[in-house]
Amino acid sequence: MQRSLDYGEMVLLIEPHKQRSFSVVLKENSILHTHQGTLPHDEIAGLPEGSRIQTNTGCIFLVFRPRISDRMMKVRRKTQIVYPKDAGWLLMALDIFPGATVIEIGIGSGAFTTLLAQMVGPEGKIYSFDRREEFVENALYNINRSGFADRVETDILEAGEPFPVNDVDAVFLDLPNPWVAIPPASQALAPGRPLALIVPNAEQLKEAVESLYQNRFDSVEKVELLERKMLVRQKEGVRPLERMIGFTGYLVSARKLSF
Amino acid sequence: MQRSLDYGEMVLLIEPHKQRSFSVVLKENSILHTHQGTLPHDEIAGLPEGSRIQTNTGCIFLVFRPRISDRMMKVRRKTQIVYPKDAGWLLMALDIFPGATVIEIGIGSGAFTTLLAQMVGPEGKIYSFDRREEFVENALYNINRSGFADRVETDILEAGEPFPVNDVDAVFLDLPNPWVAIPPASQALAPGRPLALIVPNAEQLKEAVESLYQNRFDSVEKVELLERKMLVRQKEGVRPLERMIGFTGYLVSARKLSF
Amino acid sequence: MQRSLDYGEMVLLIEPHKQRSFSVVLKENSILHTHQGTLPHDEIAGLPEGSRIQTNTGCIFLVFRPRISDRMMKVRRKTQIVYPKDAGWLLMALDIFPGATVIEIGIGSGAFTTLLAQMVGPEGKIYSFDRREEFVENALYNINRSGFADRVETDILEAGEPFPVNDVDAVFLDLPNPWVAIPPASQALAPGRPLALIVPNAEQLKEAVESLYQNRFDSVEKVELLERKMLVRQKEGVRPLERMIGFTGYLVSARKLSF
Amino acid sequence: MQRSLDYGEMVLLIEPHKQRSFSVVLKENSILHTHQGTLPHDEIAGLPEGSRIQTNTGCIFLVFRPRISDRMMKVRRKTQIVYPKDAGWLLMALDIFPGATVIEIGIGSGAFTTLLAQMVGPEGKIYSFDRREEFVENALYNINRSGFADRVETDILEAGEPFPVNDVDAVFLDLPNPWVAIPPASQALAPGRPLALIVPNAEQLKEAVESLYQNRFDSVEKVELLERKMLVRQKEGVRPLERMIGFTGYLVSARKLSF
Repeated sequence: MQRSLDYGEMVLLIEPHKQRSFSVVLKENSILHTHQGTLPHDEIAGLPEGSRIQTNTGCIFLVFRPRISDRMMKVRRKTQIVYPKDAGWLLMALDIFPGATVIEIGIGSGAFTTLLAQMVGPEGKIYSFDRREEFVENALYNINRSGFADRVETDILEAGEPFPVNDVDAVFLDLPNPWVAIPPASQALAPGRPLALIVPNAEQLKEAVESLYQNRFDSVEKVELLERKMLVRQKEGVRPLERMIGFTGYLVSARKLSF
Repeated sequence: MQRSLDYGEMVLLIEPHKQRSFSVVLKENSILHTHQGTLPHDEIAGLPEGSRIQTNTGCIFLVFRPRISDRMMKVRRKTQIVYPKDAGWLLMALDIFPGATVIEIGIGSGAFTTLLAQMVGPEGKIYSFDRREEFVENALYNINRSGFADRVETDILEAGEPFPVNDVDAVFLDLPNPWVAIPPASQALAPGRPLALIVPNAEQLKEAVESLYQNRFDSVEKVELLERKMLVRQKEGVRPLERMIGFTGYLVSARKLSF
Repeated sequence: MQRSLDYGEMVLLIEPHKQRSFSVVLKENSILHTHQGTLPHDEIAGLPEGSRIQTNTGCIFLVFRPRISDRMMKVRRKTQIVYPKDAGWLLMALDIFPGATVIEIGIGSGAFTTLLAQMVGPEGKIYSFDRREEFVENALYNINRSGFADRVETDILEAGEPFPVNDVDAVFLDLPNPWVAIPPASQALAPGRPLALIVPNAEQLKEAVESLYQNRFDSVEKVELLERKMLVRQKEGVRPLERMIGFTGYLVSARKLSF
Repeated sequence: MQRSLDYGEMVLLIEPHKQRSFSVVLKENSILHTHQGTLPHDEIAGLPEGSRIQTNTGCIFLVFRPRISDRMMKVRRKTQIVYPKDAGWLLMALDIFPGATVIEIGIGSGAFTTLLAQMVGPEGKIYSFDRREEFVENALYNINRSGFADRVETDILEAGEPFPVNDVDAVFLDLPNPWVAIPPASQALAPGRPLALIVPNAEQLKEAVESLYQNRFDSVEKVELLERKMLVRQKEGVRPLERMIGFTGYLVSARKLSF
């Protein structure tokens, strides 16, 4: 039995047949101002997910709980985030499972942290470190809002310092110089388990791959993903969209050796 | 504390610095025959993951447990499978979480079923249906081998028949005519929750999208993903690989309306 | 010996190390107003190509004659144009050579017509037809400005009408329903010679290909081209640009049978 | 009036509705052996282009003159060649026109040289240099077979040596270390005119771009092109082909400054 939308929850509003959405946290006695008119939060609270609502100017919105991918796109950003298309690949590469213990270096805005927290479930644990306190604070704001705060532990850690946890199931690195974190990652990771990382430039890709081979990793995969949105119109026809995101980063995965 | 590799487990063998791998289920007193010499299973059993082993001709292999993505690629195939790059996107689109209940129509070879089973964990449940008994049997063979049999229920179901479960958290359709399964999917899905599907051709994409809008779905996304493998060589340099997979299917997601 | 830039010529102005350019036709006693200050045309006229000029606010521009690809991008547009990346493919597919006679159906804004005119040279001839007089007039404006007016003959022609020329070396179709022009194209084309066309949607691609096979064409190729711009920075590194054009059309070529 | 196919000409044989082709030079009293039976050359000679012929086992082939793109793919190869998709882009970037004088450094197998020769016409001239005599000889074999020998001058030239021609309309560089040829290219090119180059790796791309800026070039463009073949089947539908070429090189163009 599905719960209805409640105060304190983040909800997504979408125009019918459109892709663009915006998010709002429901509060009593509040008014939502949209480009298409206003709407009292009190009219949204109590509705089932997937409901239709109408602004004072007669415009229709659909209201949903954010999926985890929506949450990632709606975090309060202090940094570049890991996009859902790349996040899906990383979940697979890191072989995430309920109950897993995962280290993330570079908490960023906490978008990928939140995804990891959803995926490891209440039995799992995410340790996420960053060298900048303001990033950790902002990420915690986002993680708290997702309701997964108890699955995530954060701390300030200089890149290159040893990690305060061991025998973890997966390590994810999202920092400009991932090679400084590869030696401690190699220490912290259980034998055979995967590490993944994302870097923006070809030169970093090269340096990261070299560092992996020098720090007891092998089975190294390096890819980038292009997501092409399709335009589907019943009358005019089907084709790719004219605009696309051309690049979001190089993705690498590798597995820890035991010797 | 990591378990060592045991009899009855599937293991992956990989040549160092190479990408190609092959898999074998460890059996007592068995000999593995490779293109690079032979190797007794008994020398692999008992090793930690990530170990190095040597064939009788002196060739080196690395031995790992398969990640879920490796398992998907190594299923015994009776059908086309969902590739890991698409599977990652689908996990995100379906908003999978530990404990979720998911319906899959078109069990195929059970590759994606196995992934779903890993991701929903022991508290979750996957209902997977197919109209062809031989596919269900083969898929069960693959699912059993992954150790997730108790999380998966399968049955024979003609496309278009109502689903025997309700109020589920996500529905995935992988069949040539997904529109026949969209009305029962709309019935079975909890309001607001996501459906996703994969189709090979532009015409099917169009018909599926039209059916979604006619069956109480909105917030429809349509994409395809291109995975580009990179070649990283310390001396010669960095570039995309010459060969790539050009296409594996159109991916669609949508959310169920409550009205 | 290179001519210096002269009044009446179109010139391109580019900021150093930038990609964006704008064009202007040089006139005596005129002042160019840019977002970076003003510049008398008289200071540009007489300069060699590739010169550096300075606005009244001290900003530097580089000045070039437009290449044919620049001309295509700078036409006065009444329609979608064929982009240079696709134009290059089409030149190859149509096997253009100096002295060739080419028919184009759908003159559009005359961008591709101008390219064809450059490539067939003074001995060649382009016959370009369109059903809308306003498009022909605008295209002629663009073609005249390129200096190739004597190589191009235009006329109003309803789609599907027989072409008033025969035994031509190549036919290019750029109209929403190219199949209506395929039978007359088959009549007009010399045996063995190529036809090419561009269409925006998958459905049109299908109908066009079917029509080709039914109208004495074979050796049919169907592609689309993705152009990815690269970002090359000496310090930060090399990577694809974040933004890219996702789609500009499906390109088809085929060869006329003699039987 | 089209000439019929003659002895001494290269012809292409294609199976109807297929893409794969093979080429043969017609000789009197010769027999062509195909995987689908044999065929006397004498039955092909005298036919119009676009004819249908039948082997002794009843298999049908279509026979065409090669387009310039077909010739490029059918050269006798001693090196990697420039692919037609990239060649089309380069024609545009180099702003080729009938009568142009073009320098090419790195003759390779002569595929791109042949294209340039077709495009500049009988009034144009291609100067193509290479440091390896065996490449020049093989390229000349291919260029001669295309009938464009009188438009091409070749010579042995060490990379970095000054070019023996000046004030040329375009320069194309296809060698592993194009930066050594950029200073002499800058000398030889008329002010304002374009240079283009192709390199395989990101590191070479970076070094080439840096060298361009240091040798009086600007307006630098850097791209790569992905060609996606489409599968169009009347019954099953339309989609991209599963296999594609993932990468053939980074393409760069720039324009010579006058100061």
